[in-house]
Amino acid sequence: MRLRAFQDEIDTWIGQFEAGYWPPLVNLARLTEEVGELARELNHQHGAKTRKADEDEGSVEEELGDILFTVAAIANSLGIDLEDVARANLDKVIRRDTSRWKKKSGGVTTSE
Amino acid sequence: MRLRAFQDEIDTWIGQFEAGYWPPLVNLARLTEEVGELARELNHQHGAKTRKADEDEGSVEEELGDILFTVAAIANSLGIDLEDVARANLDKVIRRDTSRWKKKSGGVTTSE
Amino acid sequence: MRLRAFQDEIDTWIGQFEAGYWPPLVNLARLTEEVGELARELNHQHGAKTRKADEDEGSVEEELGDILFTVAAIANSLGIDLEDVARANLDKVIRRDTSRWKKKSGGVTTSE
Amino acid sequence: MRLRAFQDEIDTWIGQFEAGYWPPLVNLARLTEEVGELARELNHQHGAKTRKADEDEGSVEEELGDILFTVAAIANSLGIDLEDVARANLDKVIRRDTSRWKKKSGGVTTSE
Repeated sequence: MRLRAFQDEIDTWIGQFEAGYWPPLVNLARLTEEVGELARELNHQHGAKTRKADEDEGSVEEELGDILFTVAAIANSLGIDLEDVARANLDKVIRRDTSRWKKKSGGVTTSE
Repeated sequence: MRLRAFQDEIDTWIGQFEAGYWPPLVNLARLTEEVGELARELNHQHGAKTRKADEDEGSVEEELGDILFTVAAIANSLGIDLEDVARANLDKVIRRDTSRWKKKSGGVTTSE
Repeated sequence: MRLRAFQDEIDTWIGQFEAGYWPPLVNLARLTEEVGELARELNHQHGAKTRKADEDEGSVEEELGDILFTVAAIANSLGIDLEDVARANLDKVIRRDTSRWKKKSGGVTTSE
Repeated sequence: MRLRAFQDEIDTWIGQFEAGYWPPLVNLARLTEEVGELARELNHQHGAKTRKADEDEGSVEEELGDILFTVAAIANSLGIDLEDVARANLDKVIRRDTSRWKKKSGGVTTSE
């Protein structure tokens, strides 16, 4: 699935409703909530926190999906194209950070 | 850009380095940091918080990109396909939440 | 209640158990989770997000308490005294930020 | 320092300014930002993330202080007493969670 298609489906869905997109700080609060739910799942599976008996079994996949949805809603509401964002991020990371980490020996040749 | 291609480019890049993917709670801490930076930007632009003189001008686009990168790194490290995640999320949202909001009058016809 | 007493009660309680304090990134993940729960409550009460039928009624007070607990656990595990932290914070805020905001006219006289 | 005194000092300080307390979602965005800064510090010191050359040395103490300040500002703006919150939290944790963890053998006697 293209990032653009994901944004478009959300835009069509939200476009059905009178309320439209939430204001940025409301969407941000939801993103904070969703990242908190991911934190709970990752801590249960990879950390030390035990699950309470009344807590539902969740899934990392579902929480990642909720985060992607909220990121796309923020982007849509502000007129931001996530494909541009993703490309700019790859450019930045590959350019900026290549020298920060030790490469495998005998290793990969890059142009940086 | 497809979500799969975004994940693959990150996987190729991280594959160059001995350290490989960070453990889940390290990636989560980075996600928390990146969401915090988005919060700062959104608060500057849409909230009440003024910028200190020594704070760099940032951009919502860049912070969204850092969040997408971290989400993709978490997914890669756990063997999760974000295209599956995105499709499952759209299914869930459209099915679950359609009745929660007031639709536009005269409005859109959907199959739900 | 003094911050020191709050930390001490938590230390006594955790001291009962073999596991002791969680590592810093586990406690951080819990803090992220608790801030997410506060976000949900504040969004319900002051934002635009409606509550799903199956979501429990929560309280801002309870979520603030969970955040304080986690902050105290992090501080305890790292040997940090939150009373020192609080005093240093007041010094910083009052010294650093006094000129950033418009004071009330006819207003308050301070020593800064 | 008592939690009440900490809240009072912040209230006096904010009371000087026309703007007064921020709305809840603005304060929440700031809390998200401050927790992100704590995440950066803890990841540098206890995780795998290296520091970029242009990143300032920070401190866990300072970030914990910023979090306490923001929690107190949220509480003040909503008329919440953090001493009540702290006491209720200790009651909840000690009552609720005592049976979740393995106690030290030969161990501590409690009234639960």
